[in-house]
Amino acid sequence: MISKIIEHLLHYISLSSDEITAISESIPIQSFSKGSILLKEGEVSKHAYFNIKGCVRLYYLIDGEEKTTFFYTENQFITSIKSFTNRVPAHHFLECVEDCTLGVLSYEAEIYLLKKFPKFEYLSRILLEEELGHYQDMLSTYITTKPEDRYKKLLKLNPQLLQRIPQYQLATFLGVTPESLSRIRKRIIQ
Amino acid sequence: MISKIIEHLLHYISLSSDEITAISESIPIQSFSKGSILLKEGEVSKHAYFNIKGCVRLYYLIDGEEKTTFFYTENQFITSIKSFTNRVPAHHFLECVEDCTLGVLSYEAEIYLLKKFPKFEYLSRILLEEELGHYQDMLSTYITTKPEDRYKKLLKLNPQLLQRIPQYQLATFLGVTPESLSRIRKRIIQ
Repeated sequence: MISKIIEHLLHYISLSSDEITAISESIPIQSFSKGSILLKEGEVSKHAYFNIKGCVRLYYLIDGEEKTTFFYTENQFITSIKSFTNRVPAHHFLECVEDCTLGVLSYEAEIYLLKKFPKFEYLSRILLEEELGHYQDMLSTYITTKPEDRYKKLLKLNPQLLQRIPQYQLATFLGVTPESLSRIRKRIIQ
Repeated sequence: MISKIIEHLLHYISLSSDEITAISESIPIQSFSKGSILLKEGEVSKHAYFNIKGCVRLYYLIDGEEKTTFFYTENQFITSIKSFTNRVPAHHFLECVEDCTLGVLSYEAEIYLLKKFPKFEYLSRILLEEELGHYQDMLSTYITTKPEDRYKKLLKLNPQLLQRIPQYQLATFLGVTPESLSRIRKRIIQ
């Protein structure tokens, strides 16, 4: 199972057998059932995850209402970056939307890997640059498009995701009420 | 002038005199008049910037309309990360909203610095983690709040910015029409 992570990292960098062993030992694979909470608001994030299988959502609890801002699927890193790196409480939750198989990297294991293999600084930089690029794109999409356009984009780029998540979670993610989402879907089907 | 950049970096890392010299030589300071275009849609971003003085905005041209998605002020890095790191055309513009003084880092200079001083891999990682944290927060704010709340937040966290930028640019940044922004401002003043 660990090979999925190694396979992913090999897209970015070559790895010696020592490095592969260190990563494999430092990032154990764990299973989480649907509904498991990986991080609660107010907690300091102790782990970053690599999603091998399943779907995890990031949501905020605002005036008693859950607002989903991200869905993580296969081959994505899941990091509450500010909380994880600065050791400060998170303002959001992470929840498994499906049964999940995740690589689990603790803060201590990250420090250990970076210290032992300085090459991983390079790897981290490359992965962070990629992630930052995604976020710049997502923020731009959010500011420059309407919810209906965002739904169409998702339908084109990630149609599978729409089958995997509840409509009420998708609605807040698109920035609309579930009723508006219903209307958008009807318009598109017509 | 270069000392502003060094001063900023020293918050994150200690620097030897060799490193300070290399940074100073690799990141020349340039002045840009208000209205200067630093990057055009369709161009590959050749430079990252450190904002010493002034304000730069990132905008998209969509159906002939400019949609501003970011304002960079003092002590911020300005990077079109995907275009700069992957050498692909950018989909947006960067424009000086005011007369600006910027540290200018070319792609080649970045590669040189990272190669010569492996310690800068660490620095890059730290800076990218911080930037990614900002973007995660901004995206969440966008998804979970209404334009009026975003205006109030800006008024609280960065009131100066509101004096420095034209209202029509601020409006698209908040995701509303200039007319809606007028109404929001009236409501708040009342």
